[in-house]
Amino acid sequence: MGDPRSMTSATDTTKPRMPEEPADRDVDIVEVAPRDGLQNDPALLSTDQKIGLITRSVAAGIRRIEVASFVNPKRVPQMADAEAVLEGLPGPDSPQRLGAAWIGLVLNARGFERAQRTAVDEINLVVMVTDTFSQKNQGMTTEESIATVESVVPLAQAAGLRTSVTMSASFGCPYEGEVPVARVADVAGRLALTGVDEIAVADTIGVAVPRDVARRMAAVKAVTGRTQLRVHVHNTRNTGYASALAAYEAGVRVLDSSLGGIGGCPFAPRATGNIATEDLVFALERSGVNTGLDLDELIRTSDWLGEQLGRPTPALVSKAGPFPPA
Amino acid sequence: MGDPRSMTSATDTTKPRMPEEPADRDVDIVEVAPRDGLQNDPALLSTDQKIGLITRSVAAGIRRIEVASFVNPKRVPQMADAEAVLEGLPGPDSPQRLGAAWIGLVLNARGFERAQRTAVDEINLVVMVTDTFSQKNQGMTTEESIATVESVVPLAQAAGLRTSVTMSASFGCPYEGEVPVARVADVAGRLALTGVDEIAVADTIGVAVPRDVARRMAAVKAVTGRTQLRVHVHNTRNTGYASALAAYEAGVRVLDSSLGGIGGCPFAPRATGNIATEDLVFALERSGVNTGLDLDELIRTSDWLGEQLGRPTPALVSKAGPFPPA
Repeated sequence: MGDPRSMTSATDTTKPRMPEEPADRDVDIVEVAPRDGLQNDPALLSTDQKIGLITRSVAAGIRRIEVASFVNPKRVPQMADAEAVLEGLPGPDSPQRLGAAWIGLVLNARGFERAQRTAVDEINLVVMVTDTFSQKNQGMTTEESIATVESVVPLAQAAGLRTSVTMSASFGCPYEGEVPVARVADVAGRLALTGVDEIAVADTIGVAVPRDVARRMAAVKAVTGRTQLRVHVHNTRNTGYASALAAYEAGVRVLDSSLGGIGGCPFAPRATGNIATEDLVFALERSGVNTGLDLDELIRTSDWLGEQLGRPTPALVSKAGPFPPA
Repeated sequence: MGDPRSMTSATDTTKPRMPEEPADRDVDIVEVAPRDGLQNDPALLSTDQKIGLITRSVAAGIRRIEVASFVNPKRVPQMADAEAVLEGLPGPDSPQRLGAAWIGLVLNARGFERAQRTAVDEINLVVMVTDTFSQKNQGMTTEESIATVESVVPLAQAAGLRTSVTMSASFGCPYEGEVPVARVADVAGRLALTGVDEIAVADTIGVAVPRDVARRMAAVKAVTGRTQLRVHVHNTRNTGYASALAAYEAGVRVLDSSLGGIGGCPFAPRATGNIATEDLVFALERSGVNTGLDLDELIRTSDWLGEQLGRPTPALVSKAGPFPPA
């Protein structure tokens, strides 16, 4: 197969087409706390608190952030202020922006219509790898969900937006159980053909282990050409950090995490447990991998986030402190 | 160097010299909850509760268990009933014993004297790899601590007991910070020469990462001949499970863990967080590694332990459930 991107054409735009790729880092960490994290949190943060979380993350070095979800506010009330959050964020020329890109979750054409009227730089689509999960979550088959990606990606790219798609339940399904590697590769190959800029392989229910990460990412890589790959894991069963490090060892250079380790997927039974940004950064930096992030600043932001939520977060480095101590 | 074991001679004894190595497992998990776990727990379990924990662990398939510590009861009141615990445990011919071996912690000749009058099968000695930690913890230098091992190992082996030594702070020191790999290898090489049966490399303060595990275990392996190696890691900063899996990948076939993830080292500042046996077993089994343990039974035992302690434990698999679900 050729380069899937050659099938699409980007138009000129004043919006930043791609986030700045700082030369000083080996891996890009996508901060998901403001969306994936808060969406599944019992606490309801105000728009100002969300903006505070996002700008603090940028100050700590984060350059890609899930800031909002353009989904039905009746279904996800925590995300009802998507437009207001984007309105309140620093503009492209603000000294607080530092080249950071805002990502908005979009599940369909209606969501995209909302997103493109805001300041988002990138839209993130979602495909559930198994039909049962897809039907229960989105009311459509995986096939129909891929068709949505096929229709929305060109529209988004024509509007100057970067696009990514998350493949949920790529390591296991809460309804179907084991998910064959061939199924994951098949869906990934189909998605690469849509011309989407990035494919995020997600362990929605937290069952990945390093050997399985290596196996699945090799299979995905073999069918996705030059499409950028990204990995999103949960620590539901204490394998999340091992899996994220394994993804890096497998050549993945974009990893998702959530400050304080908050959140998960509200529609996957018992699937709590994003990995914590500060703990992932500790593990990567201690492995000699430069994240470009300021661990002390991340810990301060995580502490601040815990105060806003009114309870301690599951992250550990913020409690134990970095090593070696400063 | 030759085989360090050739320097010692085992005497005939009615006690089991080595634990049974079941042919049905790829890795041996040493259960440390009854000693390392409870020693650092705010709850004080009764002798009967400890015996219940140990026999339940054996029923779940565990074949080596830290059951007691022969240290000063004034310093570690949780372990004051060491003799009573061993007295109450199933004897070698009990149908509840299943070939399991009891390990007792011993810090010096006085501790060994106490241990050898009980039914322990194995004594575990401790050496702190850095002088500062060793001075603060044991009131002696690392060198003096190695000398203790040199004097106790032959006595124990002559008494028909298996011997192991734990190298504390092998990945980082709470006082000195970074610990050079050369220092770890130097201490390991010295310990192998004592004829000790097994050397456990321990990340007492929870700062190990997989790349560092691979590096340090290679260095240790190079100087310890055929001495069996074992790894003990903590999840203080969420890198414990990744490090344990990395130890397996590095060829280590004996791993420590604690049911429920309880405990740590009471003398290392902020060094809480043993890895949980049930979570380690989930990660290993999902990696295709046969532990020979019954995960459902481990989860039941962990739940039971949480009830005895009166609070939830840090383990996650017992909350999220295994995968795929039964």
